[in-house]
Amino acid sequence: MSVNENLSVHGLIVQLPLDSINRIDTELITNAVSPDKDVDGLSCINAGKLSRGDLNDCFIPCTPNGCMELIRQTGVSVAGKHGVVIGRSKIVGAPMHDLLLWNHATVTTCHSKTPDLPEQVGRADILVVGAGRAEMVRGEWVKEGAVVIDCGINHVPDETKASGKRVVGDVHYASANQRAGFITPVPGGVGPMTVAMLMENTVQSAQRFLLRSQSHR
Amino acid sequence: MSVNENLSVHGLIVQLPLDSINRIDTELITNAVSPDKDVDGLSCINAGKLSRGDLNDCFIPCTPNGCMELIRQTGVSVAGKHGVVIGRSKIVGAPMHDLLLWNHATVTTCHSKTPDLPEQVGRADILVVGAGRAEMVRGEWVKEGAVVIDCGINHVPDETKASGKRVVGDVHYASANQRAGFITPVPGGVGPMTVAMLMENTVQSAQRFLLRSQSHR
Repeated sequence: MSVNENLSVHGLIVQLPLDSINRIDTELITNAVSPDKDVDGLSCINAGKLSRGDLNDCFIPCTPNGCMELIRQTGVSVAGKHGVVIGRSKIVGAPMHDLLLWNHATVTTCHSKTPDLPEQVGRADILVVGAGRAEMVRGEWVKEGAVVIDCGINHVPDETKASGKRVVGDVHYASANQRAGFITPVPGGVGPMTVAMLMENTVQSAQRFLLRSQSHR
Repeated sequence: MSVNENLSVHGLIVQLPLDSINRIDTELITNAVSPDKDVDGLSCINAGKLSRGDLNDCFIPCTPNGCMELIRQTGVSVAGKHGVVIGRSKIVGAPMHDLLLWNHATVTTCHSKTPDLPEQVGRADILVVGAGRAEMVRGEWVKEGAVVIDCGINHVPDETKASGKRVVGDVHYASANQRAGFITPVPGGVGPMTVAMLMENTVQSAQRFLLRSQSHR
């Protein structure tokens, strides 16, 4: 692709989801992006590097990268903690597991087939939820003092709103806020970080291109 | 490389470890193997596919693939179980996590920075150990009836042997055998499966090449 070859372009993303009606092969398209310009971090090569801990040699997907930045901002150290991730998607759960693991947390991944979610959540020092189910995680499940990061964006009916609906996360905020040491709201928590991390990845990409071009002189 | 392009060759592996004295870049060499012939499953692309659950479109590293086959042979279903993996290496821990997860277990990855290993092990319905520390996992940690898969190969001093040493796993077999429902010995457990899986991956590769060549006619 010409954009892959254009040296003045440092980042290239595929706006997902692709039209599912025409059965576009999403994997084929996302992997057509040069790994050097894959600032969304969604190509197989970048996912493989991340899964093996090569954090400085890949692009980290923006949402989990933003979650890590939020966790860092709490001042809570990740190493030696128990991290629990709910969800195993390519853009949230799977890379979030990798990031927590390679920042030296012990990590448990939960998903729709996990039979004892409340118990698993109760063991989390750091909880990241990307399940796509409105207010699924209840406050009483949360460990006292835990860091709770909510990646959910769900629309639920609300007759008090002009639109007839409102946005909630995957965590029941009001009750979880009673127990968590730190918690992100929805909206306004993880969402804005995702955009910021896309910019950061793009700047990082430009720096890498510049360094490579200098070393080739 | 000519071997990558030779259509009569369906599998190509790099014998690891590479000579560390000459600082050979192992990543560079393993990723030079065509993903289509990477029957060790060690390239970034295959690792990325596995980490995202594309199990039928990748080569699965041989040791964890053999572990999964051993687990299947017990008749214990993986879905909904709690799997615990000790170790996060490229050839055992990381891909084992992916395999258990995408066979729908809830999975916890432990490692050298895990502070409460006995408690984590005690929650495992399925325990896979690839830590490289002789007899580190004690029988009293193991959940009653658990499936215990030991990938460790450690040489310990033994004056009763002519060689002055013997091979043990990462699990203290005698005590763990008292509690486990199923347990693999060392030597003779996982080891022979690894070789078998390398053969299976190579046959699978040949089949894929054949199917592709037929579909191109």
